[in-house]
Amino acid sequence: MTMKFAERMELFAASDIQEILKVTARPEIISFGGGLPAPELFPVEKMKEVSCKVLEENGTKALQYFTTEGLPSLREKIAERSNERLGTSLEMENVVIVTGSQQALDLAGKIFLNEGDVVLCESPTYVGAIDALKAYQPRFVEVETDDNGMVVEDLEKKINEEKNVKLIYVTPDFQNPTGVTWSEERRRSFMEVVNQHSIPVLEDNPYGELRFEGTTPPALKSFDNKGNVIMLGSFSKVLCPGMRVAWISGDKDLLMKFVFVKQACDIHTSSKSQYEIDTFLEMFDLDEHIAELVKVYGQRKDVMLKAMEEFFPSSVEFTNPEGGLFTWAVMPEGIDAREVVMRAIEKKVAFVPGDAFYPNGGHPNTMRLNYSNMPSEKIREGIKILGEVLAEFIPESMPAK
Amino acid sequence: MTMKFAERMELFAASDIQEILKVTARPEIISFGGGLPAPELFPVEKMKEVSCKVLEENGTKALQYFTTEGLPSLREKIAERSNERLGTSLEMENVVIVTGSQQALDLAGKIFLNEGDVVLCESPTYVGAIDALKAYQPRFVEVETDDNGMVVEDLEKKINEEKNVKLIYVTPDFQNPTGVTWSEERRRSFMEVVNQHSIPVLEDNPYGELRFEGTTPPALKSFDNKGNVIMLGSFSKVLCPGMRVAWISGDKDLLMKFVFVKQACDIHTSSKSQYEIDTFLEMFDLDEHIAELVKVYGQRKDVMLKAMEEFFPSSVEFTNPEGGLFTWAVMPEGIDAREVVMRAIEKKVAFVPGDAFYPNGGHPNTMRLNYSNMPSEKIREGIKILGEVLAEFIPESMPAK
Repeated sequence: MTMKFAERMELFAASDIQEILKVTARPEIISFGGGLPAPELFPVEKMKEVSCKVLEENGTKALQYFTTEGLPSLREKIAERSNERLGTSLEMENVVIVTGSQQALDLAGKIFLNEGDVVLCESPTYVGAIDALKAYQPRFVEVETDDNGMVVEDLEKKINEEKNVKLIYVTPDFQNPTGVTWSEERRRSFMEVVNQHSIPVLEDNPYGELRFEGTTPPALKSFDNKGNVIMLGSFSKVLCPGMRVAWISGDKDLLMKFVFVKQACDIHTSSKSQYEIDTFLEMFDLDEHIAELVKVYGQRKDVMLKAMEEFFPSSVEFTNPEGGLFTWAVMPEGIDAREVVMRAIEKKVAFVPGDAFYPNGGHPNTMRLNYSNMPSEKIREGIKILGEVLAEFIPESMPAK
Repeated sequence: MTMKFAERMELFAASDIQEILKVTARPEIISFGGGLPAPELFPVEKMKEVSCKVLEENGTKALQYFTTEGLPSLREKIAERSNERLGTSLEMENVVIVTGSQQALDLAGKIFLNEGDVVLCESPTYVGAIDALKAYQPRFVEVETDDNGMVVEDLEKKINEEKNVKLIYVTPDFQNPTGVTWSEERRRSFMEVVNQHSIPVLEDNPYGELRFEGTTPPALKSFDNKGNVIMLGSFSKVLCPGMRVAWISGDKDLLMKFVFVKQACDIHTSSKSQYEIDTFLEMFDLDEHIAELVKVYGQRKDVMLKAMEEFFPSSVEFTNPEGGLFTWAVMPEGIDAREVVMRAIEKKVAFVPGDAFYPNGGHPNTMRLNYSNMPSEKIREGIKILGEVLAEFIPESMPAK
């Protein structure tokens, strides 16, 4: 007689990706694996001032239970920031605080998905979204995706072919894993399709403010005339992830569903963390902090791409992102990134095999490389080693994919 | 064409309980409604010292992503505390940090429940557990419950009658809502039954350390010889709820399921909050702080019960808890607590109608009264007013239920 679990638990198990990520945490490893911000850029001293001020001025409130919706002054600031930067028209009531964007993904699954419902996503897509949504046992249908974003003709085809499309998940700005940003034109045509339906769209945007060059296109939300688009934003990549403060923004009535469901999941996000981030935004200039991140991450990206050009076999192709944390490499057909990573880890370099980002599998010849978490000299050293490892697997004469 | 939601969303809606709790937050209301700790007892100054120390000594770690399992030194301290006080034999690996006990309830639902599975619970039981678990669409079967806890004969009967009992949820120490504590004898016989099956038991214990008198019985977990019992503990009631730090403890393999599922829900609980609570436990004496809470809450409980004896119609019966935050009152049959609370709110006093704590409804003549969140003079004043309101509904000659 053994304990019986829910059917969905067959989908949850220790994955080899998690094992790889554990390896990458070892200090001797040069890791391009996780999506961690550079800890040396965290504003520790400023956060200390902030923590003191919160406990001096709002001590009992910051330590007490709070409303599920979150701190009104923080929600107000988030709405204003979004309106200034992304062309949205949000008010405080259009913003709800969540415990990291990961929670928003879980809540969305709970709100929209019955078993067997269809989720449309980019191909590849964020592995954390796959993990959160799969608990609700949907079917993931990948939509063709090119260098400008989701291919709208294929999106239309799949909306029409599939009977029960309940959710569309996209990351139009410096996508995790590919680093690709959707063009403005593509955003418009995507939203023309979406505006003809009543399918909720999760527009996940944790990296958008980390732009090294070029201009920020308007958010999908800014073309939304039916209230279909729910934006996910986060302080994790622009300030610090440890406090787990992120937000969802969208139609007020739709957000109430998130509030009901969130209340049953964790009642509310840490009140102390919310007061601290709100106070940080009052006391300090977040844009100035972001400018510093952009400078450092941009340099690291340049170092990584230059080293990849120098050391990788010429048949390995890779993206050149205008911002965010990741580049994406495609090796020739027949090469298995899991074999490559095992060999690389022996030489103390790690990355994430790209197949994890395809909900329906395949694409073993892809890899995601993070450049935000390692100093430049380590990046160059690690890419050189990875180039040597790749050379063991890829004959120089091998054609690109 | 309107947006389509998951079927489970029919179970989520604005409840009148939530409306009542919103009313109770108004400053002019004497509220016996929520389960809020006394904010004037929060160790704000100590927490300020703690926050500074964490950022000085572990700044970058406290602001970075963290493992899902949580901070090892905090998990170690929790295991030791549990072993000293509750007769358990936990190691660090038997403890996982969660974002408030509410999250543990949601995770348990996800791990164990298919639609239509049976959850056994006390009658009445904690409304937050009903809310968390209902998202997984189980059937709640209430087990007969008396002044010593769940009636074991009825538990056995229901385990045998029901085909698919997947989870047992209980709060044996100062239960929310009734304030009742299970006797040691009842715990033993309950566990004799549980040890014959492989049904997971959630032993929820957020209030156990808030004991005004008598001695703490051993935890159900201490009688567990099959790894069926998963304990939920929390810093919310003994320190502060705003930081959302709680834990689950139990069998290591079973906890791994919680870790996989939690990772997809919010990645990890605030690293900063975890370091802060860990540092609080190192710098200060939590027992001393709890002794202060116990003194104040015990006095408030005495004031409330004395006032209820003085001002309530004699036909209203109520519990005399040895600890925790709540007493539970039963009015004569035919009286509706929702009507009573509406009238009470007009007179600026609030409580929670008891029917919310019965997953299958009924019992309109019950009410939960919290005594931790109001000063003694307000408690006496509020109970006097509530006595007047009750007198409007209950003729003095009416027999007890």
